[in-house]
Parts: sequence; structure tokens; C-alpha cells
Amino acid sequence: MKEFMGKDFLLNNPTAVELYHEAAAKMPIFDWHCHLSPQEIYENKQPADIAQLWLAGDHYKWRAMRSYGIAEEYITGKASGYDKFKAWAKAMPYLVGNPLYHWTHLELQRYFDIYEPLSEDTADDIWQRANAKIAAGGFKPRDLIVNSGVTHVFTTDDSADSLEYHKLLAEDKSFSCRVLPAFRPDKALAIDLPGYLEWLQSLEDRVGRKIETYGALTKELKGRIEFFAQMGCRASDHAFAYMPYEPADENELEKIFAKALEGKELTIKEADKYKTELMRVFAKEYARLGWGMEIHIGAMRNNNKLMFERLGPDTGYDSIADHEIAHKLSRFLDSLAYESALPRTVLFTLNPKDNYVLGTMLGNFQNDEAASKIQLGTAWWFNDNLDGMREQMKTLANTGVFGKFIGMVTDSRSLLSYPRHEYFRRILCAFIGDMVDQGLYPYDRVILEKIVKDISYNNAIDYFGL
Amino acid sequence: MKEFMGKDFLLNNPTAVELYHEAAAKMPIFDWHCHLSPQEIYENKQPADIAQLWLAGDHYKWRAMRSYGIAEEYITGKASGYDKFKAWAKAMPYLVGNPLYHWTHLELQRYFDIYEPLSEDTADDIWQRANAKIAAGGFKPRDLIVNSGVTHVFTTDDSADSLEYHKLLAEDKSFSCRVLPAFRPDKALAIDLPGYLEWLQSLEDRVGRKIETYGALTKELKGRIEFFAQMGCRASDHAFAYMPYEPADENELEKIFAKALEGKELTIKEADKYKTELMRVFAKEYARLGWGMEIHIGAMRNNNKLMFERLGPDTGYDSIADHEIAHKLSRFLDSLAYESALPRTVLFTLNPKDNYVLGTMLGNFQNDEAASKIQLGTAWWFNDNLDGMREQMKTLANTGVFGKFIGMVTDSRSLLSYPRHEYFRRILCAFIGDMVDQGLYPYDRVILEKIVKDISYNNAIDYFGL
Amino acid sequence: MKEFMGKDFLLNNPTAVELYHEAAAKMPIFDWHCHLSPQEIYENKQPADIAQLWLAGDHYKWRAMRSYGIAEEYITGKASGYDKFKAWAKAMPYLVGNPLYHWTHLELQRYFDIYEPLSEDTADDIWQRANAKIAAGGFKPRDLIVNSGVTHVFTTDDSADSLEYHKLLAEDKSFSCRVLPAFRPDKALAIDLPGYLEWLQSLEDRVGRKIETYGALTKELKGRIEFFAQMGCRASDHAFAYMPYEPADENELEKIFAKALEGKELTIKEADKYKTELMRVFAKEYARLGWGMEIHIGAMRNNNKLMFERLGPDTGYDSIADHEIAHKLSRFLDSLAYESALPRTVLFTLNPKDNYVLGTMLGNFQNDEAASKIQLGTAWWFNDNLDGMREQMKTLANTGVFGKFIGMVTDSRSLLSYPRHEYFRRILCAFIGDMVDQGLYPYDRVILEKIVKDISYNNAIDYFGL
Repeated sequence: MKEFMGKDFLLNNPTAVELYHEAAAKMPIFDWHCHLSPQEIYENKQPADIAQLWLAGDHYKWRAMRSYGIAEEYITGKASGYDKFKAWAKAMPYLVGNPLYHWTHLELQRYFDIYEPLSEDTADDIWQRANAKIAAGGFKPRDLIVNSGVTHVFTTDDSADSLEYHKLLAEDKSFSCRVLPAFRPDKALAIDLPGYLEWLQSLEDRVGRKIETYGALTKELKGRIEFFAQMGCRASDHAFAYMPYEPADENELEKIFAKALEGKELTIKEADKYKTELMRVFAKEYARLGWGMEIHIGAMRNNNKLMFERLGPDTGYDSIADHEIAHKLSRFLDSLAYESALPRTVLFTLNPKDNYVLGTMLGNFQNDEAASKIQLGTAWWFNDNLDGMREQMKTLANTGVFGKFIGMVTDSRSLLSYPRHEYFRRILCAFIGDMVDQGLYPYDRVILEKIVKDISYNNAIDYFGL
Repeated sequence: MKEFMGKDFLLNNPTAVELYHEAAAKMPIFDWHCHLSPQEIYENKQPADIAQLWLAGDHYKWRAMRSYGIAEEYITGKASGYDKFKAWAKAMPYLVGNPLYHWTHLELQRYFDIYEPLSEDTADDIWQRANAKIAAGGFKPRDLIVNSGVTHVFTTDDSADSLEYHKLLAEDKSFSCRVLPAFRPDKALAIDLPGYLEWLQSLEDRVGRKIETYGALTKELKGRIEFFAQMGCRASDHAFAYMPYEPADENELEKIFAKALEGKELTIKEADKYKTELMRVFAKEYARLGWGMEIHIGAMRNNNKLMFERLGPDTGYDSIADHEIAHKLSRFLDSLAYESALPRTVLFTLNPKDNYVLGTMLGNFQNDEAASKIQLGTAWWFNDNLDGMREQMKTLANTGVFGKFIGMVTDSRSLLSYPRHEYFRRILCAFIGDMVDQGLYPYDRVILEKIVKDISYNNAIDYFGL
Repeated sequence: MKEFMGKDFLLNNPTAVELYHEAAAKMPIFDWHCHLSPQEIYENKQPADIAQLWLAGDHYKWRAMRSYGIAEEYITGKASGYDKFKAWAKAMPYLVGNPLYHWTHLELQRYFDIYEPLSEDTADDIWQRANAKIAAGGFKPRDLIVNSGVTHVFTTDDSADSLEYHKLLAEDKSFSCRVLPAFRPDKALAIDLPGYLEWLQSLEDRVGRKIETYGALTKELKGRIEFFAQMGCRASDHAFAYMPYEPADENELEKIFAKALEGKELTIKEADKYKTELMRVFAKEYARLGWGMEIHIGAMRNNNKLMFERLGPDTGYDSIADHEIAHKLSRFLDSLAYESALPRTVLFTLNPKDNYVLGTMLGNFQNDEAASKIQLGTAWWFNDNLDGMREQMKTLANTGVFGKFIGMVTDSRSLLSYPRHEYFRRILCAFIGDMVDQGLYPYDRVILEKIVKDISYNNAIDYFGL
């Protein structure tokens, strides 16, 4: 029996042990997709306790607590931090096999030097030791980032954002990590959702001009992309339940935009036309600037209306969509490739049924503009676990060039999430080491270490041109 | 090499061995979804021979025999029981990797003390020994149930059923197993299938009143639910190729019902409106009564018309559907959750591509009304095998709270199916034990045994309020 | 650590080692689906070098090279064979986990006695040794076929083909392998694609008659099927993104055909009607002649228009489709089964999400006309790798009679692909051996060897009636 989450956690063969400890573990972290707040990082405040760090904003944990049967009072309600922590601890042992089980204990080990399993029985002791550690220092945002070896972070920023905290952070030479924005124009694309006109107002406020036509809109958004580029942006990010593809001409687009301005409801086809063509406008800019375009496909959001009305979005009520995605995604990417205007693209799927659809989609559009110009994004959200990561790795290895994979992102709102890179790297080393130990790949330490280091860090640095 | 189906069958690590023999194997059985006949159990007749027990009604075996290339005469035809048994024995060795291979040998071991593999060569000897054992007694329905340690069984009963045999069984104090009905109103929902009006007639006969409006129909069906509740019912069951969701008002529903009464063909949309709203009526009753609502999604039935005309339904001609299911299922569940009228719900998928769609759907609607109020049903029918069970367990562990899983059902028409609970428990213990042995979960016997016992039995008892 | 691709490559348990070396490895090869050119086999020319053998026509490798980031010049462009070989060698180590990695090294081992891993460093040495070996002889098409132990090959031939090289090969008694045609009327079915009228012209030229009605078309195509049968054909092959099913009468079909003759664009429904009914015409002929009908479902072809215009089809720009397939496929097969005119049918899926849809579809239409009359095709194209093969085997074992599986095909354009049968057989023996070693199946060498030999060779011979 292996030690519980010991030194060789997840490293199930000798080659994996070597590769992890001698190559992967030594690499810095480039977290090229996350949801950290640049303001929080800039302000760099001392956290109150482990309840604040763990339970104040993490909708993954909230969801697990509800699934255990805990009352909302102890999740997002008025219960004390201590009581919420106790509720979380009580559920913990029943989360056998859940990534939260491993994340929780990795965080306890790496940040708090606590090696006991969390449960109702150990909760009080862990509460006290963790909080003492927090009080002793090293838990401010920048401490957590720097001590985790993070050299670069891409945040996720609305197209109308001022990026003021990115600017302040860039000016602060005492902070070694580069915190760069990523362009996330979801609200600009969501012409069919309630908040669209409010977002348009925010864009008008930002640029100081009225936006009364589709032509004006694209002009201003191109300006925003230019501004993001000046702020060091190297990537965009987009979320779609499925990738729309409905080509339309300028005339149609003006009519659709005008209809939206009047507050009228659009048909799905109209909205998809707008999204298709605006995405094509964006993509051409990204291609011109050498950015990577991240596309996250397959989330179905805000499924619980009652709780949405109480708590708003991103509170643990999302799940996996199951649309047909292959044909339209192919047509969208091809429409750009045909104009030699397809940027570097990272395709993520939330539905594991589509791993091979995306894994093989990549190959349709690869060329020598970059090593694996079209990438299969790492296992994401509900797939961000042992099985999901292994499946993503197998898919990519079988269908693409695994050695050119740009690797892991936390996709997290939490500053304690960097051990997820460790988790990924251990799985990566086990995946490759297992092939070596089974005689499926030669034991050549030079190339093996290069591949592991590249996937851990170097490939992403090259890919995004940093 | 491990002994063929020996004592530690499927238990591939030391923790699994301990957990199975010291915890799981000791628990009784609660089979909360099966297709046993309460009449058969009540009448408690002596079976003729092993051919009758195995081959008279098991369409899983029939299907496998056809796949081997056996003529229908030896499957559902006029051949003797002995000849059918021989045909089955001949096919057996070629079913390598099939769950029927393991079920067959588990049943030979547990009920007949026969440990030789079944094949053409051993068929005659096994035929004689098994039949001698049957003749010696212990093979009547109630013997098989009681000797298997079954404390509760939920059968599957039409909404118009008299439940007379449930009543008789409840009155018979000599029989220790509680045989309770489950409300399965598939025929009430199948307004678009040929037998609908015949079913309606059967309901009218049962309640002694004409049913001429949709309003009257729902009134009578609510009455049936009340009657089922009085008879101890704690669960409903529903089968859909996909979950329909087309909201409609009373007026529309009356028109649709009237159209059906006239024998006119309904559009798919009309049928889905009826199904949506009638399901919503049902679900609210279930929520009020604290029942569990089981939804089985993804069967495509009666694919072979020629054989359907000869043999009728449930004869081995069903397979897996592949509709998009996520959006409508979400909308259906949310429509109830928004009215605080969503009952405890168990979601089963027949298409393994949808494991993660359902696994993540659960989380959208969990709350403190029950531990894991929304459950992912165990691997079902075509997934009821080693791989399918492991996938269901991995999915649930990754996306939910595995320790609150309500576990296994046989879903069977056969009284010899209880070793499938053993099969499940062995896989369960191997699944958890493997994590422990790999250092992914602590070796804490108290909590490990609790989880294994809970999933084997206790969780289901709690969930259905028994 | 096991030796890199050594004697027991992929054989991870003692039973697998025995079964492979003592049973599977000794069987000849029947490659019942490939894309070899009968003309090439007939002409039997000496190849120039390993670049010609490996890189002149293999779009799998081209695709991998593009994914690594190699310029098109070194793939399909004007670079020398040596430079292309070097480019391929450079990418090789990064293809860790890709089937091309194993295929490449299996081919180096089996054909060239080269056991070093290919990389930039070893490229020059391997280039020279491989080319010296080629120059020394044994690399002409017929040498490669005969020395690989191939007894039968089915090529893939257009319905208008003359089959002249099949005739010449059949007359050449010095060549021991039977090279038989397979009827692939994809162009006859593709009424909605640009080349249809050109194909029709080619058919008219072949038969020496104008074809002006749908009735005439089916008459001529039946004649072609008869001609193929006379030439020894035992199988057809069909490719569909999804299986269409839109029944239509003769009158409609004549109108649709007339519309196509006029060069007008057909609706999807019209094209599907034509495809449905023409496939039904074909299938009835196949049933009459005892042929196997192979249906390949799920490829989405020619996704990159820019490269299609430069390089044409089959150049590495295809990927996996994700349509709903279950319902229409069921209706199509049932429409034939109901008329007792369903031929032996082999269902292949390119999308692994549909493994269980097809695995369970088989059972709907099995009967005693053949052992596993409806077959699940082996893992194909993007699934033709370790994981894909294991998944196909698991699916078939769980849902059908694995012992009656008709096994592997190369589906290849390359004469060096026969080691893929070895690859398959090693995986097969590991799959079965693993069950034995885990105690899931008895260690009975007679039946185990029979099953392994049957799946390697005998089942396919029986199935296609050779």
C-alpha cells in the first residue's frame, strides 16, 4: 500500500518518479488561463482564515457540499466561517474519488504542512493550525503566487475592462510575476442574453462614444483588442455551448444589431449570425497579433433558476451540454483558414464525448505557423480530475503530437490552486513513464525530460510568444 | 494467475479483499428496481428445471444466443428445455468478456455449488446436477429471495394495476421480505403509441369511471398514486428515449387529449407537451409523498419489426438511443425545482456517452432535502457489466459525493439475479480499495467500511425512507 | 522496465505471451478491407527508397508532420525524399503515444531489421540501412504481401471500375495471394456532391449505354454487382457521415434523379431519399449473393478548403463527425430485415462515442444466417490505436459474442501495413490473457487458442464465405 498522498503520489512507475522529481517538479508555472482578480493581486490583502481562502468563493466546493446534503446556510449563507469549515470537513471523507479530495489535501500539505486527512474529527485541529499559519504570514496573494513559482498569469477580462490593475501591477517592479490580461468578449457576443445592452453601455462609457451601428461596434472592439495588445495581452478566451456558424453579410448584421438595440428578441439564427461574424472579426485580429484563441465548448450554465435569482451566476449550478459540434466548428475554423486568417487556437471541450471530435479537428488546420498551432486544451472543469486528464492525454497522444502540448491551466478563482499544476505534472509523468515501463517508448532520459519540461512550461511560453 | 472466479474474484488489491469480505458481503440486499412478478412470488411455485429458470424468460440470454448464430427454435421456439440449455452451453465459451459469462457462473456457484465452467462438454453433467439440486428444494421464488438476504424489493407496476399480489404478500407474515410496488406510468405517458386507448380503458375499468378529459385523467392518476402510497410505494419509474420538455397550458392539453381519444395521430410536439405536463403532475405528487423518481433515459425499443410481430416486446431487440438530452432534461428538472416541487430523483442513462452529462446534471439541483437528493443511477442494462459499472463509479466519484451513492439494482426478471449485487459489491470494493492501495485515499477502516456498507444497503434504505 | 518494443511487446501477462506466440502469430493474414491498388500489385515495381514507401502517399504521416509544425514543402512539396525522411525523423520522438510511433518502429523491425528508435540523430544511419535493404530486394509489392503471410486481400473499387487488374492477378498462378475486389459505390450514392455526373458518365462508358432514368441506373448497378460477384467479390463498402433513412417510392426517385441530371441542387432530404433507396437496392443484392456489407459511419471529410484545392481528397484533412446515428441506422437495417433481405453487415464507427450504440445495434438483427451476422467493425482510422482497439474489444465483448469477431483490417494504402495485424493480435491476446490472469475466464488452452486463431483469421474466412 502506497503512503496516502506521499512523495510519489500518482507516480506509479519508476520512470514517472524520476521524470517528476528530476524534471517536472523543477519547472516554474505559467498559468495561461485563470479567473484571478488583478485587483486582489494588486491590493494584496491579508486573508482572515482558511474559511475565507477556501469557502468564500469556490463554487466547486459549494456544489459538493450541496450534494452531501448540507444546508445552504452553511454554504453561501450566514453561518460563521468556522461552521462552514466544519460542514466542509464533515463531507470530506465521502468525497472519495473526487478531485476536491486531492486538491484539498494537496493544499493542506503544500501551504500548511498539514498531512492529516480532513474529517469531522480532525476539523478543529486543522482549523487552528491552518489559521495560525495564515496569521504567521505568506498567504497574501502575491506571496502565494511568487512562492508557487509562477512566472506568468493570464487573467480573463471583459472587452470593456479598463485593465487598470494590470497596469498598476506591470509598473510594480517588486512583483516578479507578469500578470497579463486575456481578452474575453463573451458579453460582447451574448447579443441574445439580458445583459447585452448594459454591456454595450459599459463599452460606450469606456470608449467615450455612442455605438449605434454594427460597423461602429466592430471598430470599437478592434480598438479594445489593440489596447489589450498594448497591455501585453497574448490570448483571447471564448465560451460557447456549441460553436455557432451562420455566415452573414454586413447588411444583415446591421439589421440584427439594430433589432437588438431596440430590445427585441432575436431568433437563434440571428444571434448565431452575429456571433459567427463577430468572432470572425475577432479571430482575424488575433491572427494578425499572433495571439492564441481559446475556445471553451460545452458548458450549459445557470440551470437552477431559483438559485440563480438568489445567488447569481458562477455559484455551482452549471453542467455539461451535449450539442452536435463538429460540423459548425469545422466550418468556422475553415472560413478563417481559407482566408489565411486562422489564429493559433486552443479547443477545449467540457463534454468528454467530444474529446476525439476535437482531437481530430486539430489536424485539419495544422501548419508550420507554430508547433501544434491548433491545440487540444487540457481537461477542463468537470474533467479536471485524474480520469479526465488521462483521457485528454490519451486523446491528444493518439491523434496529435503530444510532445508539443501546451499543458495545464488552473482555470481557477482561488490563489491556492497552483498545486493543480503539480497534480497535472504527476499525471503527465505517470502517463509517459508508464509507456516507457511497458516498453512502448524508449527509455531516453534526454528526450523524456525535454518532453516533460516542454509540456510543463516551455511549450506554452513558446506558443503564446512570451 | 488468479483462480477462476474464486473467493477473491474481482478483488484486485488487499484493501478490496478486506472491505468485501468484512463489510460488503455481510450486508443484506435492497433491490429497489426490478421486474419480478409479485404474482410469481406469491404463488411460489416449484420450477421445473434450470432451463425454465434460465432460458424461459431471459431476453439477455436470447440475444446472446442469436448473436452466436443459434436458430430461434432453440431460443424462443419449440425445442426442449434440454436442447435449449445445450445450445446456451455451446455458446458460453465464446462469450468471453460478457457479463452473462460471469452471471451464469456466479449463479452456478452460489445456487448450485457448481464450479466447473459451462461449455458443450460439461453441459450434460451440469444439467443433471443442477436439476437434481432444484428438485431437492430451495428454488421456489420465496426461498431464492429469503436465502439471498433480500429485505426489500420494489417491483415495477402499471398505474392501473390492482396491486392485489402486493396486498396478499403484505398480509403473509411468514415471508420476511417486503415486496413493495413502484409506480411505472409508462403506458399513461405513451399517448403516441398504439396501446394508449386500451390502457385508458384499463384505467377506467380500475377506477370505475369514464375518463373523458385531461383534467379527469390527472385526477384519476393522482388517485392511483395515493393508492400506491397506501400500498407502501416509495418510488416511481419512467423510461424515455430522451426527456421531453415542451410546456403547455391546460387548454392545449385538453385538446391534445381529445385528439388522442379520437384516435388521431399526434405530432411529436403534441405528444411531448402531454408527456411534459403529465410528468410534472406526477413529480409534484412524488415530491409531496417523499418518493424517489427514477428516470431511465436512452433505450430505443423494438427495433426489429419482424420479430416484434412474432414475439412482442422485451424479447431482446432493444438498443441504445443517442439523442441530445442535456438541455430538455435540465429545463424539466428546473421547472419543478423552481416551484420547490422536485422530488428525489435518480437519473439513469443507457448511453455511456451521457455519463458526464448526467453526473454533472445532479449538481444543479442538490440541496439538503436528502443526502445526494439527485442520484446517478447505477450502470444499467447494456452497461451492467464490469466496464460500465467502473465508468459509472468513476463518473459519480469525479462529479458528486460517491459516499452517498444508493447503489445497485438488478433490474431483472429473474429470481436468480441476486449475485449481481455481489458482483457490484466486489467491483465497488475493488474501486475504493484500489484508491487506498495507490495512496489516493487514506486507509481508515472505520470510514471505508461505513462507505461500503452505506453504498451496499444503508444509503438506499435512507433515500427511500424505509 | 520492459524492453522497448521487444519480443513481448504489448503482452502484459503470461497467458497473453503464450497465446500470441503459440497461436495468433502463426496464423496467416486475411486483410478484408484495404486501399491497395491492384494495378500496383500487378505491376510489381521496385520501390526507390524508404521515403517513397513511407512518405509518398501516407496522409496519416503528413498530418502528424503538419501537427509538429513542419512546412508543407517537406510533406507534399518539392523537398527531396531524403529531406522529407529527415523531417519525419525529427518529429518522431514527439509522437509519444501515437500509433504512428509504433507502426513506424514495427515496420523498421519487421521489414528492415532495424531496432533503434528513429530520431533526428539516427535518421541518416537508418536512411542508409533501410535503402540498402530495399535495394537488396524483397520490397516489391508481391514480395511484401507474400512474405507477410497474406492469403486474401479485399481492395476497394468503384462501381464503374473495370477490375482489369484483379482479372490479371487472378490469372497469374505464380502469385499465391487472392486479391479480390470489394464493391464501393460511394460515387454512385453521392448524388449531392460535385463529381456525380462525371461518375455517371464513367458508368455509361463502362456499360456502353445511356442512363437516363433511376430505373436504368439501378438496373446497370445490379449488373455491376453481378460482374463484381463473377470476379470473386464477397463484400461491399460504404461511407456515411450518418446513415440516411428517408424512404421514397419509384416516382419520387425518378424525379430526384432527373433533377440531378439537370445539374440542379438537391435538398438534403432528396439526397437522403436517393441514398436510402439505392442502398436498399444494393443491400438486397448483397443478401442474395451472401456478401458482407461494410458500413463506415462518422467521417467528416475535406475540412480544409484551401488545402483541398491544392492537394485534393485523402491528404490528411478529415476528422470525426458527431451526428445522431442510432434511430435512422436502426430504421434502415430494419427495413431490410423486415423483408428478410438484410445481408451480413459490418458496422464501423469513427466516433468512439458511438461504440455502444453500434455494439447494441448488432443484437437487434442477429439470427442464424451466420455466426454474429451483424459485426462490430474493428477500431478504425482515428481509433486504430491501442486505446481505440481496447475500447472496441471491450464494447464487443460486453455487448456481443466476442469469440465470433471477424477481427482486423489494415484499411491502408501502404504495402508495409501488415504489422498492424500483429499489433492487433498482440492487443487481442493481452485483452483475453488479462481476463484469464485475473480469474475472469478459465485457463483452457484449447478454447483460448481457438478463439484467438478464429478472431485472427478463421472467423473472417467463414464470414465472407471463402
